[in-house]
Amino acid sequence: MKQKRFFLSESEIPTQWYNIQADMPVKPMPLKDPKTGQAMTPEDLFPMFAKECARQELNTTDRWIEIPAKVREMYTYYRSTPLVRAYGLEEALGTKCHIYFKNESVSPVGSHKLNSALAQAYYCKEEGVTNVTTETGAGQWGTALSYAAKLFGLEAAVYQVKISYEQKPYRRAMMQLFGAQVTPSPSMSTRAGKDILTKTPNHNGSLGTAISEAVELARTTPNCKYTLGSVLSHVSLHQTIIGLEAEKQIAMAGDYPDEVIACFGGGSNFGGIAFPFMRHYYDGTHKDTRYIAVEPASCPKLTKGKFMYDFGDEAGYTPMMPMFTLGHNFAPANIHAGGLRYHGAGVIVSQLLKDGVMEAMDVDQIETFEAGMLFSRSEGIIPAPESCHAIAATIRRAKEWDAKGESKVLLFNLTGHGLVDMTAYSQYLSGNLINYAMSDEEVQKNIDAITF
Amino acid sequence: MKQKRFFLSESEIPTQWYNIQADMPVKPMPLKDPKTGQAMTPEDLFPMFAKECARQELNTTDRWIEIPAKVREMYTYYRSTPLVRAYGLEEALGTKCHIYFKNESVSPVGSHKLNSALAQAYYCKEEGVTNVTTETGAGQWGTALSYAAKLFGLEAAVYQVKISYEQKPYRRAMMQLFGAQVTPSPSMSTRAGKDILTKTPNHNGSLGTAISEAVELARTTPNCKYTLGSVLSHVSLHQTIIGLEAEKQIAMAGDYPDEVIACFGGGSNFGGIAFPFMRHYYDGTHKDTRYIAVEPASCPKLTKGKFMYDFGDEAGYTPMMPMFTLGHNFAPANIHAGGLRYHGAGVIVSQLLKDGVMEAMDVDQIETFEAGMLFSRSEGIIPAPESCHAIAATIRRAKEWDAKGESKVLLFNLTGHGLVDMTAYSQYLSGNLINYAMSDEEVQKNIDAITF
Repeated sequence: MKQKRFFLSESEIPTQWYNIQADMPVKPMPLKDPKTGQAMTPEDLFPMFAKECARQELNTTDRWIEIPAKVREMYTYYRSTPLVRAYGLEEALGTKCHIYFKNESVSPVGSHKLNSALAQAYYCKEEGVTNVTTETGAGQWGTALSYAAKLFGLEAAVYQVKISYEQKPYRRAMMQLFGAQVTPSPSMSTRAGKDILTKTPNHNGSLGTAISEAVELARTTPNCKYTLGSVLSHVSLHQTIIGLEAEKQIAMAGDYPDEVIACFGGGSNFGGIAFPFMRHYYDGTHKDTRYIAVEPASCPKLTKGKFMYDFGDEAGYTPMMPMFTLGHNFAPANIHAGGLRYHGAGVIVSQLLKDGVMEAMDVDQIETFEAGMLFSRSEGIIPAPESCHAIAATIRRAKEWDAKGESKVLLFNLTGHGLVDMTAYSQYLSGNLINYAMSDEEVQKNIDAITF
Repeated sequence: MKQKRFFLSESEIPTQWYNIQADMPVKPMPLKDPKTGQAMTPEDLFPMFAKECARQELNTTDRWIEIPAKVREMYTYYRSTPLVRAYGLEEALGTKCHIYFKNESVSPVGSHKLNSALAQAYYCKEEGVTNVTTETGAGQWGTALSYAAKLFGLEAAVYQVKISYEQKPYRRAMMQLFGAQVTPSPSMSTRAGKDILTKTPNHNGSLGTAISEAVELARTTPNCKYTLGSVLSHVSLHQTIIGLEAEKQIAMAGDYPDEVIACFGGGSNFGGIAFPFMRHYYDGTHKDTRYIAVEPASCPKLTKGKFMYDFGDEAGYTPMMPMFTLGHNFAPANIHAGGLRYHGAGVIVSQLLKDGVMEAMDVDQIETFEAGMLFSRSEGIIPAPESCHAIAATIRRAKEWDAKGESKVLLFNLTGHGLVDMTAYSQYLSGNLINYAMSDEEVQKNIDAITF
């Protein structure tokens, strides 16, 4: 019988994260203070983040960073996650390619987000922080942080985009079950929220407003830190456990990836699976592997956005970051892949894309759900709408290689399951989904409208 | 670091199911034809079930039954499931007991139900069947059968209890995504459904009516077989893969269970985890292990029901079975653990309970959700309401042993996750859950009212 799933024993699970910044010949440009225009130091970030996270954020020298023992212990609750040879999908496609996926959906909270939530909660606890706060849209990150906070005895306050709070009661209930206080944003509990609600009563909320509320809470509350689920470099660092495991596991299967494929929101799952393999681009042992970030056609920051300094949030509370962006005021279309509805890309990925180390493609919403259905029926796992982007791209690539008569090894990241996204699948099944591709003109109009 | 999870390699996964009937000195009493009163043969069951399932149902001689190669291959999509040492829960309880759980929630469909769905779909396919049908309440079994049918190229028709069809759109969408036709029951598509709907318009449906519709469809359609997710002996047989794996895994952990604990609906997950260990009761190597079936206090067939011949369904389409029952017309209270809302127990378990080989306890709804919340926060996995019964019982037992100053090894079966049951948790969190314990008088009144 052909082996389907590959696991590492607990002693084989990596004990260090990989910091790609150390290997990049061209380092990411610095974060800048929006008021002074000065490059920021870790100390500048201490008021907002755990100190260790702030240091990791700007660490461009240490290739390997120890995973704290307590975080490693919590990783064993669900890691290693399986690397799976997608025999079912291969058969359904009739492809000669070898398709593998790293199944991060088996984490307790159903997605890869926990890999960083555990680390951030741990560092906060170690530094004497008592309260953590964050924002969440669809709720994957909020769920992960709520669980991690409970494990480490921290109080968590999550601002959930109001429309999601109302439309996704399952995710909200998960966060509450893990003990978090969940507030629909905008709320009257912060100045940012009050400003919005007095100006625009019944505002539905957005990730931008929720970030502003969470950041404000952290800044104005003693012993309270802000945490983030993607975009930042230390978040991608924590996610490299994915690729480091996958590298060992795919070797057990006797393969090495020709292409590494991941969906793209802020960059953390992409970086998590791709960066460890990219180190062999830098050390010269595997120069030809391709790294493909897949974004929604409705939010095409990598394929059509502009590389420039921009804010990470709508209100302009964050540092200025050198990123591919559609503009921090950009309001993405209401696609179901809520985790990909973000205007900008993390600074490392932006630099790598600029330098041609990686590439990007965009996919329309309906194609992603088609891919999700085929995957569900052939592999039995219902993927999150975000993950469907990676699956759709993988299917495209397999077909392209088949058309050329070549067999390649494709590896994609299954970031999460779609069990709490079944209303999206229902819409797809009933033919009520819509595509929202942005034209070059629309993108340009948005970029022209960026104001600081 | 202490090892948390134990897996088997694919080559260590059991290749045979364990048929406890071969070891039982007192065999279960026969199924009887309701019309003739005669003991039924496998041939009598052929019109309803796949032939091989009918043979397995009544096989009291072969201790081991080969798992077909194709089923074993599909098992590798998710098996072995992890055996987990519940360090988090142990710490939360401050117990000296070793608590383990077998995590069946990692199956593609989120529960143990797939273990039998794959087998039943396989046998149907092998025997030239083209269509399968079944009923489902909450939807765990319907989801499993829908996926298994798709894998083996069968068309699946699922009758879902109408109130669940409307209240649980996520489960319904999962079945549809896997390609099944889902019909709310009672429907106008069968005579049984028409009779009910003309007599009682706007009937909400029940498991009893849904079984009647599915059985009728199978009987009146060429090449269509009926499948069932619990109660029957061949279903428990397929589930023994759980206990056979667990036995190897707990040995890897250096332990052997003093108590094996599982929730109880019809008996298949209980039998699945308990029967393989019970064979060491029969072979004399482990005489003292206790086997505890946990049922809702609102549906206490094992603790308060009567052992007698009864139907498996409300309409009386099934064979007469010797079982502990509350009466086939019994309408269980509307608890969230839909999978445990069934009036009777399988014939093997009924005989074992009668013979004192196993025992039963009942738990109230609120205690089960308290246990589910503690488990979620300490182990990170949100359990299905059904599984919460096993957790609640395990917590009780651990506390009892601690009070005696003894450390025991407790093993329970985590049958499924509760990700599509978050509305139930929301009700619990908001204090709106209700207990529905039945008194002895109420049980007696139901049993007195049984009519044939």
